[in-house]
Amino acid sequence: MENSKRYNKGIETIKKMVSDEEFEGISYMREVSPDFWDMIISFGYGDVYGREGLSLDKREIITITSLISQGLFDQLPFHISAALKTGITQNEIKEIIMQCAAYAGFPKAVQAMTIAGEVFKNIDAKELTK
Amino acid sequence: MENSKRYNKGIETIKKMVSDEEFEGISYMREVSPDFWDMIISFGYGDVYGREGLSLDKREIITITSLISQGLFDQLPFHISAALKTGITQNEIKEIIMQCAAYAGFPKAVQAMTIAGEVFKNIDAKELTK
Amino acid sequence: MENSKRYNKGIETIKKMVSDEEFEGISYMREVSPDFWDMIISFGYGDVYGREGLSLDKREIITITSLISQGLFDQLPFHISAALKTGITQNEIKEIIMQCAAYAGFPKAVQAMTIAGEVFKNIDAKELTK
Amino acid sequence: MENSKRYNKGIETIKKMVSDEEFEGISYMREVSPDFWDMIISFGYGDVYGREGLSLDKREIITITSLISQGLFDQLPFHISAALKTGITQNEIKEIIMQCAAYAGFPKAVQAMTIAGEVFKNIDAKELTK
Amino acid sequence: MENSKRYNKGIETIKKMVSDEEFEGISYMREVSPDFWDMIISFGYGDVYGREGLSLDKREIITITSLISQGLFDQLPFHISAALKTGITQNEIKEIIMQCAAYAGFPKAVQAMTIAGEVFKNIDAKELTK
Amino acid sequence: MENSKRYNKGIETIKKMVSDEEFEGISYMREVSPDFWDMIISFGYGDVYGREGLSLDKREIITITSLISQGLFDQLPFHISAALKTGITQNEIKEIIMQCAAYAGFPKAVQAMTIAGEVFKNIDAKELTK
Repeated sequence: MENSKRYNKGIETIKKMVSDEEFEGISYMREVSPDFWDMIISFGYGDVYGREGLSLDKREIITITSLISQGLFDQLPFHISAALKTGITQNEIKEIIMQCAAYAGFPKAVQAMTIAGEVFKNIDAKELTK
Repeated sequence: MENSKRYNKGIETIKKMVSDEEFEGISYMREVSPDFWDMIISFGYGDVYGREGLSLDKREIITITSLISQGLFDQLPFHISAALKTGITQNEIKEIIMQCAAYAGFPKAVQAMTIAGEVFKNIDAKELTK
Repeated sequence: MENSKRYNKGIETIKKMVSDEEFEGISYMREVSPDFWDMIISFGYGDVYGREGLSLDKREIITITSLISQGLFDQLPFHISAALKTGITQNEIKEIIMQCAAYAGFPKAVQAMTIAGEVFKNIDAKELTK
Repeated sequence: MENSKRYNKGIETIKKMVSDEEFEGISYMREVSPDFWDMIISFGYGDVYGREGLSLDKREIITITSLISQGLFDQLPFHISAALKTGITQNEIKEIIMQCAAYAGFPKAVQAMTIAGEVFKNIDAKELTK
Repeated sequence: MENSKRYNKGIETIKKMVSDEEFEGISYMREVSPDFWDMIISFGYGDVYGREGLSLDKREIITITSLISQGLFDQLPFHISAALKTGITQNEIKEIIMQCAAYAGFPKAVQAMTIAGEVFKNIDAKELTK
Repeated sequence: MENSKRYNKGIETIKKMVSDEEFEGISYMREVSPDFWDMIISFGYGDVYGREGLSLDKREIITITSLISQGLFDQLPFHISAALKTGITQNEIKEIIMQCAAYAGFPKAVQAMTIAGEVFKNIDAKELTK
């Protein structure tokens, strides 16, 4: 597979998971470092996320668990939102976080649940104003 | 729910995931610290793993991802084996590890894949001698 | 012990460590996820913090050290404040942080000391306005 | 304070915490890197451990918690043994580990408790053969 | 070497890496804890950074990599700025971050690249207004 | 660039850093998971290590620092050996580790220095028997 195909596959995969607005939100990276942007899309979303063998919703469970387990919360709202798009429910996200409490400790889970609560509130608020 | 019920639920849950031999393997903890053993079973497997709202195979994806993402490999063979019992395939475990390469770095994924390779080899060897 | 007893014991323990105002501050979690709130109180503060065998001030040394060593700073102001309530002095908290510099690296200790400085300043300011 | 004084203070502090045999065990580092050995003794045990303001047993609680919370187990037997010398009981070490289960996750605590169990068994065996 | 010499060497080293303004920015620590401030300067910048055997720019590569790999971003702007002063280029910093993507995972690298982009933008803006 | 070119570039890069024997040592991964092996070579060594903009020896400083800072020691002997091949001296590796003591804590540095000591001893023993 040529690199342009890897990139296109990455774009195709990420578009299934985020809104146009969210995609714009992360594409500032293209200006900071075009090479890193290419790695994120071609490798991260093309070579890895775009693989067959595991459904997108299971891949989001992995991503969310990995972020929480490493104590990395900056990209958690983005991936909670993406997870909901792949069919995971708000309740299942709470279950993931509670299991992380046991496996990665309560402090990380408390931070994650607080963030999840805010993401859900924003989404519910948007629904209401539709 | 009384504590004896939490403990029994934990035992019931863990028995779905491990062989009698594997269960014996971890129950040495009962001697080191009966109180900690009770926490593992009643809280870890009773209150958390035993919850509805997420299937056992998805819970194993979370556990395996959390262990790899934290660089904790001692309990990985146990949980790879448990994951296979909940219906996850060897191929899916490889997919989990490859996604962890992107989200938690290649060194952790290389260690995990090496361990997975050994677990699979042992299982396949057992199958042959049956 | 029945679950309502575990919960009550957790509430009793946490009330020794935080002001009513601080307790209100964390109880938003009850709305985000009542089940997770129950885990925090019944398991975290009931089963673990409420155990005999280690005094509350030593338990706070563990919590503060664990947060700093994992690079988790969000709940540090809460636990520095709780530690002071259990009888640990401001000076002892600085000692904990300096030892963490050696065991977990200077960057984590610098972040912790900055936060501790702010918590102490707020407390001293409140004392003055009494 | 001159550097030779810092070094001597470090040696004095560490000698309170380890047997002559254990001291020999770690002093191989002097051959690998004399400069690093000097840092460990002068800074680690002289400037930090040797400080007033926190008792040695509380310092060992910090060290053990920090090692477990970072998932670093190689030096845990050494520090569990040192902790016992400073007056911490076997039971209190189990309490530290159980609290780490809540704050740093069960997998780290399980590894720590397994190691603690082995250290205690070795010590008890030595006691019997006296 | 006496302690005042260690401190002076630390001050000398740090002054090569930061502007007077940045030095003022970190010296609030002197008020929070004079002892910790002394450790940072005498040990961190005197004993470690001030050592011969590795050039200052290579030492900054180590510091930046260590911060990113641990997911500690608070002191990253300070050290990116210091790295540029030791002769590392903006492009080389991007290379460090891209390599960290492979070795410590994309989420940490994404956070680091975002911060680097902001630091570079601020510096370029200052250049323009000169 | 097509994927076969990425793979070939990765092979070319890694061959500069390891002996044939060491290369054989890691290529067992090809059997465990051909896809993961391809990621390691094409992405890790082709897209990342093989990039211009940073010399191979500086890239090894990054890798070694990242492994130590994350507390991942399994691949450290491999990369210390590779670092020596790119022109880094034994003394510089000790300097990297001592700086990691300050930035990631002494326990990680002690483990790394112990491993480095063993790698150096093995290499020196080989030199003698030539």
